[in-house]
Amino acid sequence: MPKETAETMSARQKDISVAEFFAKNKHLLGFDNPRKALLTAVKEAVDNSLDACEEASILPNILVVIEDLVPGSAASNPHRFRVTVVDNGPGIVRKNIENVFGRLLFGSKFHRLKMSRGQQGIGISAAGMYGLITTGKPMGIHTRIKKGGMVVALELAINTKSNRAEVYREEGRADIPFPPTLSAVPVAYRHPKDFPTGTSVSIELEGIYRKGKGSVDEFLELVGIANPHAHITFVWPSRYYGGNSDESGVAESDATTERSGDSDNDGPGVEGIDTSIQTTTCGNITIFPRSVRELPKETVEIQPHPNGIELGTLLQMTKNAQLEDKNETLHKFLHTRFCCIDEDLADAFVDAIKLPRRVGLSALTHDNIQLLYKTFRAADLDTPPTDCLSPIGVRQMLSGLLKGLKAEFYAASSRPPTVYRGRPFQIEAGIAFGGEIDASDECRLLRLANRVPLQNLASSCCTTKATVEVNWKAYGLPQGKSCLPGGQVVIMLHMASVWVPFTSESKEAIADYDEIREEMKLALMECGRKLGIYMKKRASLLKERERRDVFKRYLGEVSKAVASVSGCNQTKLYKALFAQAEKKTALADASIDDAGNIVRRQHAALQRDDSVVVVEDRATVQVEENNKE
Amino acid sequence: MPKETAETMSARQKDISVAEFFAKNKHLLGFDNPRKALLTAVKEAVDNSLDACEEASILPNILVVIEDLVPGSAASNPHRFRVTVVDNGPGIVRKNIENVFGRLLFGSKFHRLKMSRGQQGIGISAAGMYGLITTGKPMGIHTRIKKGGMVVALELAINTKSNRAEVYREEGRADIPFPPTLSAVPVAYRHPKDFPTGTSVSIELEGIYRKGKGSVDEFLELVGIANPHAHITFVWPSRYYGGNSDESGVAESDATTERSGDSDNDGPGVEGIDTSIQTTTCGNITIFPRSVRELPKETVEIQPHPNGIELGTLLQMTKNAQLEDKNETLHKFLHTRFCCIDEDLADAFVDAIKLPRRVGLSALTHDNIQLLYKTFRAADLDTPPTDCLSPIGVRQMLSGLLKGLKAEFYAASSRPPTVYRGRPFQIEAGIAFGGEIDASDECRLLRLANRVPLQNLASSCCTTKATVEVNWKAYGLPQGKSCLPGGQVVIMLHMASVWVPFTSESKEAIADYDEIREEMKLALMECGRKLGIYMKKRASLLKERERRDVFKRYLGEVSKAVASVSGCNQTKLYKALFAQAEKKTALADASIDDAGNIVRRQHAALQRDDSVVVVEDRATVQVEENNKE
Repeated sequence: MPKETAETMSARQKDISVAEFFAKNKHLLGFDNPRKALLTAVKEAVDNSLDACEEASILPNILVVIEDLVPGSAASNPHRFRVTVVDNGPGIVRKNIENVFGRLLFGSKFHRLKMSRGQQGIGISAAGMYGLITTGKPMGIHTRIKKGGMVVALELAINTKSNRAEVYREEGRADIPFPPTLSAVPVAYRHPKDFPTGTSVSIELEGIYRKGKGSVDEFLELVGIANPHAHITFVWPSRYYGGNSDESGVAESDATTERSGDSDNDGPGVEGIDTSIQTTTCGNITIFPRSVRELPKETVEIQPHPNGIELGTLLQMTKNAQLEDKNETLHKFLHTRFCCIDEDLADAFVDAIKLPRRVGLSALTHDNIQLLYKTFRAADLDTPPTDCLSPIGVRQMLSGLLKGLKAEFYAASSRPPTVYRGRPFQIEAGIAFGGEIDASDECRLLRLANRVPLQNLASSCCTTKATVEVNWKAYGLPQGKSCLPGGQVVIMLHMASVWVPFTSESKEAIADYDEIREEMKLALMECGRKLGIYMKKRASLLKERERRDVFKRYLGEVSKAVASVSGCNQTKLYKALFAQAEKKTALADASIDDAGNIVRRQHAALQRDDSVVVVEDRATVQVEENNKE
Repeated sequence: MPKETAETMSARQKDISVAEFFAKNKHLLGFDNPRKALLTAVKEAVDNSLDACEEASILPNILVVIEDLVPGSAASNPHRFRVTVVDNGPGIVRKNIENVFGRLLFGSKFHRLKMSRGQQGIGISAAGMYGLITTGKPMGIHTRIKKGGMVVALELAINTKSNRAEVYREEGRADIPFPPTLSAVPVAYRHPKDFPTGTSVSIELEGIYRKGKGSVDEFLELVGIANPHAHITFVWPSRYYGGNSDESGVAESDATTERSGDSDNDGPGVEGIDTSIQTTTCGNITIFPRSVRELPKETVEIQPHPNGIELGTLLQMTKNAQLEDKNETLHKFLHTRFCCIDEDLADAFVDAIKLPRRVGLSALTHDNIQLLYKTFRAADLDTPPTDCLSPIGVRQMLSGLLKGLKAEFYAASSRPPTVYRGRPFQIEAGIAFGGEIDASDECRLLRLANRVPLQNLASSCCTTKATVEVNWKAYGLPQGKSCLPGGQVVIMLHMASVWVPFTSESKEAIADYDEIREEMKLALMECGRKLGIYMKKRASLLKERERRDVFKRYLGEVSKAVASVSGCNQTKLYKALFAQAEKKTALADASIDDAGNIVRRQHAALQRDDSVVVVEDRATVQVEENNKE
């Protein structure tokens, strides 16, 4: 038995590339199983597309195509699919293509404090790597950065050993079609005029396509709700055609993105929101149309806040600053590299650590910096600026919910921005009730972070904990102990932040920080109170109607008895009593029509509230059976 | 509002170092909060120490010291601690020190299929980085690779931007003490003769020290149970002295590791296991002594198995093989780089994909390799060799449980090795019942992977799911629906594998694969059946004793009544009846002594079983009150 020594062991030590690491640990990135892998690939591509469009101030048109490359075999076994995602973003310059698609941990979003969907620089390269691992096929990229200009088309694959891309094939010509020809997609849905510039990425991978919870369909539905400014066309594998589709959907004339859902006519809507824009499915094509035309507010990058910084980061920042300018003063360092420190405050900090006003960074000792760190921690500073955040907004949330859910009551709330660990964040909530929403013991909770839906690990997510902790019974919803509320309700929670604290790289759940959970509860309670008002009105209208019915039920008996005692005309008496009853219950009559629908005028108070939408023709009173004689 | 274009966006794209990534995402590595950070730092250092000792065939002596650098402040706030872990391993050669301690994703364990505690090459460097981030202090390293030789002492810190170490201070002389001088530790516990070679690592970090579930104490207790061949000395912060300590502990003469727990005398033990070796605490020093002298079986590295390989990996392997030898044939590639393929099978594979017998790797097309991959998947091959696994072993598990838990009944089982996704693994289970174990509604479950305790995320761990799925009522233990069993019981589960499928980088839970869960259940059921036999005997002995007592209770009455009827001597009759009763209940008398203890001879059957230990003097029958007249 050869005994190992320090020398023999040393010889085996070697570098592990980050790509090798994640290739072996691909479950950490959301590629746990074939179904989730398909979802994760779509998700990473769509997130990138939306980010790119918004940064370039372009209203996003996104085309998502999943082609089944081995139609015919059993649906429950992993198949080989080709996932293609096309956007009308600004495109990608040639020299960056390899890094964006063929290198893990490379990107523009990691080093800045700015809200975006992507934050790590792993996603799309990891999706391509998963495709390579399971099918051996490279990714296909098409990109055009200028309208009518050259289209670059290439195939590349990551070399996991080096974490660098290898280009297999490359062409660059103006006459290469963009979007690329996709036989599965009718031309109307991939019309070049909808994609003057943009990027298309194609990945062949092993996956399982199945609708339902945790599916690509659900993901895109939620993206549509959270991003009402985006127009998304989803073409799914044609062999799954039928059964799940709603054939009443889009006519061919609705196909091109500029025509559908982009009209300036607000339609028959309520309070300026077009309630007629709805997700539609025709054959194997689903369209999540654009329902608002404003782009999300543009966000700015912020500097780190002194309260939230860690000692090691501060040390590193002083080093980096000296690399950029070896004569930089502490004063300048403080007021240019942190938020909420102006020139006066910078002087105050220098004074507080007992150094001369114009001391250079290079003169600082470890102890000086440690003292500065302590002073930072204790300092009572303004909260960071919040223009780095782009909430969805109340009107947009309502518009998104109206598009995706056929409910009778909608409410939304957007909390003011606040801070956790020196990082700004903002919580928004929405609620949809009644109408065609199915009743359930525990409601559907739509969880979103920086406008991206979270579909897994719900139980360990801060959103779930916050929702469970709210007392929904106070707002008229049933709720079990430590449970989500039940009934005909869907709840939505959104966290916008420059750095969402995800519990894993696959970005599936938000870590449970007290500050975040409390804000979530406040947002939910705001919506809950409005729902409560609506629920009470609904209940009192029902009660009124019931009273009237009971009253009328006995009019016959009463008139008959009175007639037999007094000898008066029974029919005449009945009519007189009935007329009186009609008059007395006029209020309830006006409120509820014969079909049991609650009519418009009762909701004046709620309708004056911009954060509430009631769609009357869906507000069928459900307990009407009780009132039948 | 400046509109972004492909060019402006391109300018901001940059590389993210893996160290920057994990510094920002340190919760992914187990540094979620100050208490867990302290535990994780200790854990990473101890795992490395044990791995190093075992690879060099050295019985491990490990010294773990936690010094509180700000004694006096509140215990619930984060403190600054210095964690030092010293081992008697082979030491580390000078040129590798930077890479081992100051670089993430570097190591010898990632690229091979061999069982070890570490597998990713992240742990100890991440702990050092956490220390740097929270205190700004570098790590202190001491290492000696030759007995009496030079000791290298240096301070280094990771540069997160480059993921490389920077050395702050370095000395190399034979007269530097090893282990380094630690004022908190009496010399007897850090005697140079116990550490002729070895490595010491010191990290200053922000943490919280608190005993109980998820503590460093619990971790080391579990390490002791799972590694009975290791001698571990733990010196905790002296201000936590008292209250928790068991002063009856070690005398000074027991201090040095070679003297305590290392005697060849098996003591008053059962079945060759020394039941007298126990974890002892004296003041703020706890010793988890060595209770077996055999090192774990040495493991060998294996080649990947064709059934479990992925297409992408196969493609990469063919590329790598050509880099090493551009003339390598497919035949040689197959029988040298995979397990379970001999020369004949290699020929069969070449034939199966319709290529000439001596085809070179360089001639293979993508389609050839894809066909080979399909042939691999379908091939009916031997399971991989299992000499890559080193289970704890039944005797060692019993020894570990005896050392750590004062129970009355112990059983252990070790399943034969098997395979998941082409990777060999082996499951072991242990159970301890009665004695001084506290009764609870849900028992304590000790979860281990490659001999390393798992202390968090129990609910998502395969071990928990397996234990819940076993019907423990059949073995005499109470169990709620979907719950762990209750009662005076502790259960242990160990998975040994060349690649444990952890659910996260922080290695806290085993992913729930069917193959693994089934093996776990079988191992638990094996122990459970033995516990069941013991429980039944225990119950029947109790019943026997109860019967005898009832019998004797009426002897007086019977003799009196008979005497009054027949006129015979009542006392004589009573004595005769009593003698008869004594004779008839001899079996029970022999089984249960006056104190209600179950005595040795009843357990002959179980005691013939090498996987069971019963410690009679702890087996107090609990229901004895029922038997008192």
